[in-house]
Amino acid sequence: MHENDLKFTGDMSAADFRKYGYAMVDWIANFFDTIEDRPVLPAIQPGDIRSKIPSSAPKLPEAFEKMIADIDRVIMPGMTHWNHPRYLAYFSSVGSAPGVLGELLAAALNINGMLWQSCPSSTELEQVTTAWMRQLLGLPDHFFGVIYDTGSVSTMHALAAAREQMADLQIREKGMTGRADLPRLRLYISEHTHSSIDKAALALGIGMEGIRRIPSDANFAMQPEALRTAIQEDRSTGWRPFCVVATIGTTSTTAVDPVAEIANICEREDLWLHVDAAYAGSAAILPEMQHHFAGWEKADSVLVNPHKWLFVPLDLSLMYTRKPGVLRRAFSLVPEYLRTAHDDNVVNFMDYGIPLGRRFRSIKLWFVLRYYGVDGLMARLRYHIQLAQNLAQKIDADSDFERVAPTHFSTVAFRACPAGWQDEDALNKLNARLLEAVNATRRFYLTHTKIGGKFVLRIAIGNIRTEARHIEDVWQLLRTMLRDVLKNVQNA
Amino acid sequence: MHENDLKFTGDMSAADFRKYGYAMVDWIANFFDTIEDRPVLPAIQPGDIRSKIPSSAPKLPEAFEKMIADIDRVIMPGMTHWNHPRYLAYFSSVGSAPGVLGELLAAALNINGMLWQSCPSSTELEQVTTAWMRQLLGLPDHFFGVIYDTGSVSTMHALAAAREQMADLQIREKGMTGRADLPRLRLYISEHTHSSIDKAALALGIGMEGIRRIPSDANFAMQPEALRTAIQEDRSTGWRPFCVVATIGTTSTTAVDPVAEIANICEREDLWLHVDAAYAGSAAILPEMQHHFAGWEKADSVLVNPHKWLFVPLDLSLMYTRKPGVLRRAFSLVPEYLRTAHDDNVVNFMDYGIPLGRRFRSIKLWFVLRYYGVDGLMARLRYHIQLAQNLAQKIDADSDFERVAPTHFSTVAFRACPAGWQDEDALNKLNARLLEAVNATRRFYLTHTKIGGKFVLRIAIGNIRTEARHIEDVWQLLRTMLRDVLKNVQNA
Repeated sequence: MHENDLKFTGDMSAADFRKYGYAMVDWIANFFDTIEDRPVLPAIQPGDIRSKIPSSAPKLPEAFEKMIADIDRVIMPGMTHWNHPRYLAYFSSVGSAPGVLGELLAAALNINGMLWQSCPSSTELEQVTTAWMRQLLGLPDHFFGVIYDTGSVSTMHALAAAREQMADLQIREKGMTGRADLPRLRLYISEHTHSSIDKAALALGIGMEGIRRIPSDANFAMQPEALRTAIQEDRSTGWRPFCVVATIGTTSTTAVDPVAEIANICEREDLWLHVDAAYAGSAAILPEMQHHFAGWEKADSVLVNPHKWLFVPLDLSLMYTRKPGVLRRAFSLVPEYLRTAHDDNVVNFMDYGIPLGRRFRSIKLWFVLRYYGVDGLMARLRYHIQLAQNLAQKIDADSDFERVAPTHFSTVAFRACPAGWQDEDALNKLNARLLEAVNATRRFYLTHTKIGGKFVLRIAIGNIRTEARHIEDVWQLLRTMLRDVLKNVQNA
Repeated sequence: MHENDLKFTGDMSAADFRKYGYAMVDWIANFFDTIEDRPVLPAIQPGDIRSKIPSSAPKLPEAFEKMIADIDRVIMPGMTHWNHPRYLAYFSSVGSAPGVLGELLAAALNINGMLWQSCPSSTELEQVTTAWMRQLLGLPDHFFGVIYDTGSVSTMHALAAAREQMADLQIREKGMTGRADLPRLRLYISEHTHSSIDKAALALGIGMEGIRRIPSDANFAMQPEALRTAIQEDRSTGWRPFCVVATIGTTSTTAVDPVAEIANICEREDLWLHVDAAYAGSAAILPEMQHHFAGWEKADSVLVNPHKWLFVPLDLSLMYTRKPGVLRRAFSLVPEYLRTAHDDNVVNFMDYGIPLGRRFRSIKLWFVLRYYGVDGLMARLRYHIQLAQNLAQKIDADSDFERVAPTHFSTVAFRACPAGWQDEDALNKLNARLLEAVNATRRFYLTHTKIGGKFVLRIAIGNIRTEARHIEDVWQLLRTMLRDVLKNVQNA
């Protein structure tokens, strides 16, 4: 064969990239501009989107114009709009404009930051931006920062380090099975810890039975006394306690575990303390919120997700640890083809985790921090917190509703409880119907949780586009819908 | 407090997004257009990039113009250009134009595809594009496809499913430690299996000792007879074999394990077979390459990374399994706040893994498949394969060089071995120097590996911009540099 047998075809021309890039930017600018006019939830059934797409890939190239047209024809009808100002479900995750442009740049550069040498700029910008964030969060200088994709993956790495810290068990070398010398390992979480911690524990071989849930107090925060007792009890029955996960801002109610007290217990008991502040951690940049974070500087690892409430597009999860050597020991493995001349003088981020592929994620964080500035980010977070506090006051003042948890940050957990409704089952059905009615308008998207048997509604504020009027609207809609639902119940 | 106490500030205006979006597209178009004029490797020392960036985040907003200027001032001097046509290191990972524009769209939509309801379009486009790819790869219809971020993470999920398949061990429920009833688990890989499999095994508690490396043959492929013997030996000494990882296209030499034979062994021994085709899997879309993939349809799980040799930007790893129920059992955990009305009728991709955050990754795959068309992708892959075959012929015809492994795909493993050089240590030093000399020109980037004690150079072709002239250039450069290095050695 000769090299001219086959012809080089290459990529899109620069002129076409410019043309279609502009078209895509126009599409997105229009999308951002009109998002409020769109329903936040789609009106479709499972399979509706699939049915609009051919069942096999095209043999011949398609025009890019057609692909852009298909965004409106195929994709938009099936969108749940996380970027929508009236999206108040789960926790907000919003792609701000500078974050989106940062992601565009990262995709175009398309490096793999596994090693310093494989892209020095990526490694060093990750070091710089994690240091910036460490200062803003008020964490000590000796915390080592690393960017993972999601909170779930960050957590798994933290728990793996906790396991590796027990060097006497030689788990890395000998594994966990078939060993009479290994005690059963116990991980402590609260009743309200996020399910990702359970998933990480399953992956790491801790098992459901190795997870002990510590009761919480009236505010849904872990009871340190109960934790202390559980650890003693477990030690006396042959378990080996190794890790506690405390949460600042739980998913259901944004409760805050007493981290300082828990940290003292962990220190005394020689347990790894992981603090999950995936959502609320962003609020640590506000001096007036620092009290919620008291003691997290004593944690072994801390997790904050800028892709939640810091306007960075998915995915970018920050993890800090004061024991990077332990994390590294758990995962470092350097085959010959990944050795470089610089290995002794640099950080090779691949050594701190499972994923070998590492996108240039720090760019979007860098762009977001610079475009808004710290003052601008603080102003936006304060605005969201104030919207939540105002809503909390309205709920408190309305006899048809009640809050079911303190509103520490920007998320309100509440339910309808009209006069005369005592039966909890009936109240749960009423609130489920109310939620369904609100979401059926497709103007707002709220989600629910269950706390102590109660069906609870959540309004999670954190979108950079959400304004006071949106929260006022959802509040009025809730009141109207409650009247409608009550009328239907009475007529039934 | 009143909601007007704090002012809504919002995001960038649509007009500014358009303006800066165009500017970013222009920057990227110019970057793509001029990439060949840039050095592929940077000329910097550790810390050089960091020193150009302030040590803390700006208090006040910065102009976007300044941020764009900093791409050239700060980022470019520290770039290892993976998109460069003369980047021939590791395996190629290239951000093609339609892939980059797909990533831009995904960042702007910024949904989390954890549940069908959390974005039906994301879930269904993931189903469609994984089905398209399944057909192109020639995998059977009953294989269930899921998109993860990286090959390492796909592998970890495959191995977790392998572990979960041993339902009798109740690992999910009871964990792995402190159990006299659990046998030691054994995972089989070859001497050339990628390090990510080791990392996954460490995370899952298998331990280094639980990993058994099966010897390979003269072509660096796993010896099925040795595998069979090892399994028997382990069973007789109390190990519990549970999983085999076979590779189609190993990292060092792109060797192909005999998957069909290994699959037969796994079937007879009731072991999970995971096939790692992270790099070479893309070639399965070529009919003339299908013979390398014989038997992979019998695997329990198969991994292919379109972000390697299918021009999709990082990160997008495809995993297929014919036992989705087992994978789901390993990881499904649905807390109340993630329940939806549709759970029984839809796929909720969060049930198939650890990450709860799931970007809209399928868009970029959809764009790439449509923009080039299957014929277009096939033509590009064939071109790369032919470039590699042509280079292999030149190496074979040159008495100063030798190939050290078959060139099955688009990667050539070779070394210099001039007449009179017999000593292996001396040859290793010579080749290390040759590599250093080539990379020091910063015109090309090659990496090395070690095979059977030999220091081996690799030329990995897979970039959409790489042309025949680039491969001819690197070949001439290698020959020139070898003469220079030899001269220096003689003069020393």
